Amino acid sequence: MPRMSAEELEQFLYSHFPDTAHRAVKVERVESMFAQVRLHYDERHLRPGGTISGPALMMLADTAMYMALLGMIGPVALAVTTNLNINFLRKPAQADVIGECKLLKLGKRLAVGEVTMYSEGDAEPVAHATVTYSIPAVRE
Amino acid sequence: MPRMSAEELEQFLYSHFPDTAHRAVKVERVESMFAQVRLHYDERHLRPGGTISGPALMMLADTAMYMALLGMIGPVALAVTTNLNINFLRKPAQADVIGECKLLKLGKRLAVGEVTMYSEGDAEPVAHATVTYSIPAVRE
Amino acid sequence: MPRMSAEELEQFLYSHFPDTAHRAVKVERVESMFAQVRLHYDERHLRPGGTISGPALMMLADTAMYMALLGMIGPVALAVTTNLNINFLRKPAQADVIGECKLLKLGKRLAVGEVTMYSEGDAEPVAHATVTYSIPAVRE
Amino acid sequence: MPRMSAEELEQFLYSHFPDTAHRAVKVERVESMFAQVRLHYDERHLRPGGTISGPALMMLADTAMYMALLGMIGPVALAVTTNLNINFLRKPAQADVIGECKLLKLGKRLAVGEVTMYSEGDAEPVAHATVTYSIPAVRE
Repeated sequence: MPRMSAEELEQFLYSHFPDTAHRAVKVERVESMFAQVRLHYDERHLRPGGTISGPALMMLADTAMYMALLGMIGPVALAVTTNLNINFLRKPAQADVIGECKLLKLGKRLAVGEVTMYSEGDAEPVAHATVTYSIPAVRE
Repeated sequence: MPRMSAEELEQFLYSHFPDTAHRAVKVERVESMFAQVRLHYDERHLRPGGTISGPALMMLADTAMYMALLGMIGPVALAVTTNLNINFLRKPAQADVIGECKLLKLGKRLAVGEVTMYSEGDAEPVAHATVTYSIPAVRE
Repeated sequence: MPRMSAEELEQFLYSHFPDTAHRAVKVERVESMFAQVRLHYDERHLRPGGTISGPALMMLADTAMYMALLGMIGPVALAVTTNLNINFLRKPAQADVIGECKLLKLGKRLAVGEVTMYSEGDAEPVAHATVTYSIPAVRE
Repeated sequence: MPRMSAEELEQFLYSHFPDTAHRAVKVERVESMFAQVRLHYDERHLRPGGTISGPALMMLADTAMYMALLGMIGPVALAVTTNLNINFLRKPAQADVIGECKLLKLGKRLAVGEVTMYSEGDAEPVAHATVTYSIPAVRE
């Protein structure tokens, strides 16, 4: 069972990341080893061609992984990304993007997850990422 | 020789990416198969622990590669990132981050570069990325 | 529907890769946008600690992707890997490793897949890879 | 200063990896945070088109990183790869491939390096990899 609800995770995210970019992310669903987040479509994320920018999708992938991980280990703010690999697959639609993160490994020191991202209402993924977090040795 | 100067590239970047995040990036130096960009230290990029956020560094890496590539091929707005892999190595200092991109390959369809990122005044890299761009078949 | 059967793909693999390492791979199942291959447990793949070596798992991931791709596009020998990213998650058991590749994108020029690898009889993945292939412009 | 010489590292490699594939690798040079290894050109590594196979280059990248790391920390056999990302840039020549690994980070728990690979006698890289190793908590 997750240790934190979607609401708690979203609140934690906003309080620790005061930038406006993270405000565009909503935490929708948290389950064991899983989190689903939503990136609100916003003209600020646009790049040439009217599509959501790569950096916005990378932030989404990183955040989905962070939420899936904290859901399992609790509010460990100092867990940090050590590696992120992303493949951009298709031009996103002019719509919200949903990121689904599945944890592949939850070790004592490292956690690894994969994140598949979809434009809302479209079955084909727009991007896919794998993300590794390092977990600090001493937890609260 | 690069086809665009640092000033032209920065102007192109700002006109095509209207979000505020990209405004934090300055294009400092462009040479053959190389670009150097600077991410201004800004409290909006902070995450718990007072460090620059991962997404800000990913945006920096992607932008450094985009500038190095457009420096070589000219203002091809629709060149798009297909893969980005980043390793976060050290906690960045509370300072600007400099990203240096070296193109490893400039093919007709794909370009690959590596980006090393340093906190200003520190010799040890804070992050390292490899980035692949797909180049559209028809250029102006 | 796949254009080649598991038997045809395995035959193609062996005839094009004459090294002994690839002989340890069996093609078990091919479906639309999917292939499952098996790496036979073999003392030659061992590394310190009695586990299957990283390079053997990388070869498995690359081969699973190659089989999934050729299953869809037919025997295009010159399709080549452009990027492979692998996370090693757990020490493999002293058993065969099964690699399941799901294609995430099958474009005209690039194909991307993800490969999850399991020790036979174990539900937890030992490794996970994403692989990109470049498809030559002119096909037979 | 490295703790092990090129000769000691090569001997360690061969004694711990009894497979024939690793025998094709020679350790040529070890310096602080650096190792250079050579993959002997061998028909067993060929793939369609007469080029060295991707898996052989991945083994080379992984081995170059392992040698650079052990050069710094000594013969810690149980250091293991956690992530490897490789970009294949050009078709290798029918010649030896030289891999040069530079350590980007040498932490207590994780080490990260980048490996650039060249066909002997050619200045353009054929492949580039970044590799992360996990270092066991208790060392001898």
